[in-house]
Amino acid sequence: MKLLRHGAKGQEKPGILDQDGNIRDLSGIVTDISGDALLPASLNKLAALDLSTLPLVDGSSRLGACVSGIGKFICIGLNYSDHAAEAGLEVPAEPVIFMKATSAVCGPNDNVEIPRKSEKTDWEVELGVVIGKTAKYVSKEQALEHVAGFCVVNDVSEREFQTERSGQWTKGKSADTFGPLGPWLVTRDEITDPQQLDMWLDVNGERRQTGNTRTMVFDVATIVSHLSQFMTLQPGDVISTGTPPGVGLGMKPPVYLKPGDRIDLCIQGLGQQRQSVVQGD
Amino acid sequence: MKLLRHGAKGQEKPGILDQDGNIRDLSGIVTDISGDALLPASLNKLAALDLSTLPLVDGSSRLGACVSGIGKFICIGLNYSDHAAEAGLEVPAEPVIFMKATSAVCGPNDNVEIPRKSEKTDWEVELGVVIGKTAKYVSKEQALEHVAGFCVVNDVSEREFQTERSGQWTKGKSADTFGPLGPWLVTRDEITDPQQLDMWLDVNGERRQTGNTRTMVFDVATIVSHLSQFMTLQPGDVISTGTPPGVGLGMKPPVYLKPGDRIDLCIQGLGQQRQSVVQGD
Repeated sequence: MKLLRHGAKGQEKPGILDQDGNIRDLSGIVTDISGDALLPASLNKLAALDLSTLPLVDGSSRLGACVSGIGKFICIGLNYSDHAAEAGLEVPAEPVIFMKATSAVCGPNDNVEIPRKSEKTDWEVELGVVIGKTAKYVSKEQALEHVAGFCVVNDVSEREFQTERSGQWTKGKSADTFGPLGPWLVTRDEITDPQQLDMWLDVNGERRQTGNTRTMVFDVATIVSHLSQFMTLQPGDVISTGTPPGVGLGMKPPVYLKPGDRIDLCIQGLGQQRQSVVQGD
Repeated sequence: MKLLRHGAKGQEKPGILDQDGNIRDLSGIVTDISGDALLPASLNKLAALDLSTLPLVDGSSRLGACVSGIGKFICIGLNYSDHAAEAGLEVPAEPVIFMKATSAVCGPNDNVEIPRKSEKTDWEVELGVVIGKTAKYVSKEQALEHVAGFCVVNDVSEREFQTERSGQWTKGKSADTFGPLGPWLVTRDEITDPQQLDMWLDVNGERRQTGNTRTMVFDVATIVSHLSQFMTLQPGDVISTGTPPGVGLGMKPPVYLKPGDRIDLCIQGLGQQRQSVVQGD
């Protein structure tokens, strides 16, 4: 299934893509794509629906972030071996964990706003993992059972805020619109192998990032298991699993986003995002 | 006002302390102590209530975290000059920001659970700041207008997870029960000066931390203003503002929590917490 949220910002309703690519409204079935609606029993109920009986939604409707009520927006740093090599950094011994503010979340095609005083706003296409069942001390073998599905994430980052100021990375990861999620949450049954997904990102039509989840240092199952040793993962939590080579910081000389830029990004089977870059107010 | 949440875990109801120290139920007035209930207009409405007309709650009722639906649980590192001196570390040039998982939040007197494989679980009494009005790019002068009130936080920390593993501090700050909040959210009007509050923490009746918010490197107004340059603060967000001297890590040799320990902590005007330490399952 491809679950989504449609409508004006702050007023999104749950929806689902039908086999013809039309949006069908799920408001009569679940209150939102969040928390308990992501539990296995709820997803089974949705999978049994006859989508043709659900109301059709105007295809021009805005898409919101594909998940709502996100409790934790967790990110993994330096998780692609080819990106670590590009950056001249050591592959970490275990996953590097940091958090992004949940207030950074936005729709997949919303404008990305450059924060005030930013000169180094950068892009990062990443595989997002959406938790569907509480996970605490789960093994690697059981980890994927706790995953509801996957989505595209643009882990937008301000490099000066992230690495040239005092302390931790959160500072450069958390501005409003720094977390486009979607277009849809693709349930796990539709992704045969999350470690074989092509991904790319273009800026103004030029290819900047090209990768495949097979070069992840720590795969999705390892990440979910590892995180669950340090915190309890809950339905609706989102994990962004790191970015492949080709970010602006890694270019020689570095290139960053500016107002008027267009970003397109895609992960195989998970759909495509497009953002216009604007100066934040 | 002293706002609180009472009842069994996950089923807490909103409440308020009356002038005799009794808990009065607020269920008929607000749905919870969270989000919009913390907006200035809502707090004004609560302040106008005749508390004697509200239902009395059994005083033996469990207290939950004094705020619910926390969007972001933000922490400031190394924010007391005397703690930095004790630790032999430089005072940072600007606030060090990191995040604690919102799933770590618990009631002020709930058990603190030592996570599996932990040998370095430590205590930190901290002044918690609860946001009551959206804050984005606010000045230091306007910052306190965005604060609903204050509470006691025990920023429980696992030092090996925090500093001896790959990457960021989140890893050692986020286990379940690592965030006791309360007993109450004391509204801003009751705290004449948030930079003149005594605070202390005992382990097994022995004084470990003694401090006063006057030795903060960055005061509450500076922190709120600073954070709002990097992320939008929303009603119900909680900021834990750093700890004074006396944590287990700083003792020679270091001393950490073990099952059976009792922690008591208090901040002037904000009430007292008491936790029993147990081994997590």
